[in-house]
Amino acid sequence: MKTKPLILVVNDDGITAPGLRMLIEIMNEIGEVVVVAPDSPQSAMGHAITINSTLHCQKINITKGPQLEYSCSGTPADCVKLAVNELLDRKPDLCVSGINHGSNSSINVIYSGTMSAAIEAGIEGVPAIGFSLLDFSWDANFHPLKGFIKKITTMALKNGIPKGVVLNVNFPKLKEEEIKGIKICRQAKAYWVEDFDKRINPIGKEYYWLTGTFVNEDNEEDTDEWALKNGYVSVVPTQFDLTAHQSIRYFNKWNL
Amino acid sequence: MKTKPLILVVNDDGITAPGLRMLIEIMNEIGEVVVVAPDSPQSAMGHAITINSTLHCQKINITKGPQLEYSCSGTPADCVKLAVNELLDRKPDLCVSGINHGSNSSINVIYSGTMSAAIEAGIEGVPAIGFSLLDFSWDANFHPLKGFIKKITTMALKNGIPKGVVLNVNFPKLKEEEIKGIKICRQAKAYWVEDFDKRINPIGKEYYWLTGTFVNEDNEEDTDEWALKNGYVSVVPTQFDLTAHQSIRYFNKWNL
Repeated sequence: MKTKPLILVVNDDGITAPGLRMLIEIMNEIGEVVVVAPDSPQSAMGHAITINSTLHCQKINITKGPQLEYSCSGTPADCVKLAVNELLDRKPDLCVSGINHGSNSSINVIYSGTMSAAIEAGIEGVPAIGFSLLDFSWDANFHPLKGFIKKITTMALKNGIPKGVVLNVNFPKLKEEEIKGIKICRQAKAYWVEDFDKRINPIGKEYYWLTGTFVNEDNEEDTDEWALKNGYVSVVPTQFDLTAHQSIRYFNKWNL
Repeated sequence: MKTKPLILVVNDDGITAPGLRMLIEIMNEIGEVVVVAPDSPQSAMGHAITINSTLHCQKINITKGPQLEYSCSGTPADCVKLAVNELLDRKPDLCVSGINHGSNSSINVIYSGTMSAAIEAGIEGVPAIGFSLLDFSWDANFHPLKGFIKKITTMALKNGIPKGVVLNVNFPKLKEEEIKGIKICRQAKAYWVEDFDKRINPIGKEYYWLTGTFVNEDNEEDTDEWALKNGYVSVVPTQFDLTAHQSIRYFNKWNL
């Protein structure tokens, strides 16, 4: 490549998250890196954007390296909008989001701040990939992922990602030698069954904590859940045209 | 029908919004109505859910009528989870969300709190419809929508909505007699070009307001944007399986 690709790095766990730090380290080996990440954790923010309040952004440097870093008060989707439309002087060649501390496989893609950042980049016409590890802990071990992330990123830069598609990549919590390979998958049809933990606060008022159990009855071999359960890295091509094209004919029969 | 259908009514503009009040009025004519709506405006919240903070919920009555009403501190998606898993003693037969003050057509579906509530209901296995009017003002005229909303809702209860699909219904800002009819559409491939309004606060620090221009270069007659521009109500069947199935073959060729 003549010039180094410009890579925008974002996440939803916040600018100090170890998963983001690892992603910066890997991307520094591939291109020119600009980081625009939330100044506080933004997990489960879905595709929220900030329209009723102001946004703040400052240049910062959390770890040594050639990357430029910005800390931003908004959501992950805000960070991408700010980066592409205000902070960067040219369109990035790629946007990578993560590495998320926790799974974004299956239906989790809908709630995920990590994937909303990648999807926002896709909407803005920037090829994008979200990376997530099935380990919620702050000190999760991201080292086994390095080679895979480098491989997928390099291939995306070389081959291109089709317009309207972004990649949702999830890693099983395994040692590098235990990972069997990479599988292109579809999103498993799973869901959460919520269980609200009802409590009483010190002044006698009821409140709830949202908790839940993940239920997956879709165990086909072409799903991300199957891949992850069987030791593979899952790659789901993900789109933001939400039209259920296959059901248009059905609804036309209603004769509305 | 033997018993009245149980209809869950939600929104993202908050429990006092006139659009919600109109939707309650219409649904009271069709079924047994339970309202679970945010206690404050939650526009552009996407599919955010509350996992790092507590949720509060109280029985309330904003307007007269047979409906049960709950005001909830969370996001639109939280409201649906709380309703289905905690507040209701049986699964609703339908969830309707809105009527949103403002458009949720095309790419706006991704940012929409109104549609995230409908999609959350769909994920929970409840047939769901989001209704939006292309008028952001608080005193928008929702009266022309009444007959259309009643028709679509009745058809949905009678015919059923296929699993994995929810309806995204948008109304042009027109008088009733000016509306030409209802069209089943696909989501137009449009996007926002952001323009950040940079300002200086009273203590000399920079901040931004997110503003933007909606750009639509997809003017085919089968899109929601075309329908709305030409005086039709647009109905887009919307899904939460985000897999770009058509590109799986392409990515398999990468031989990852």
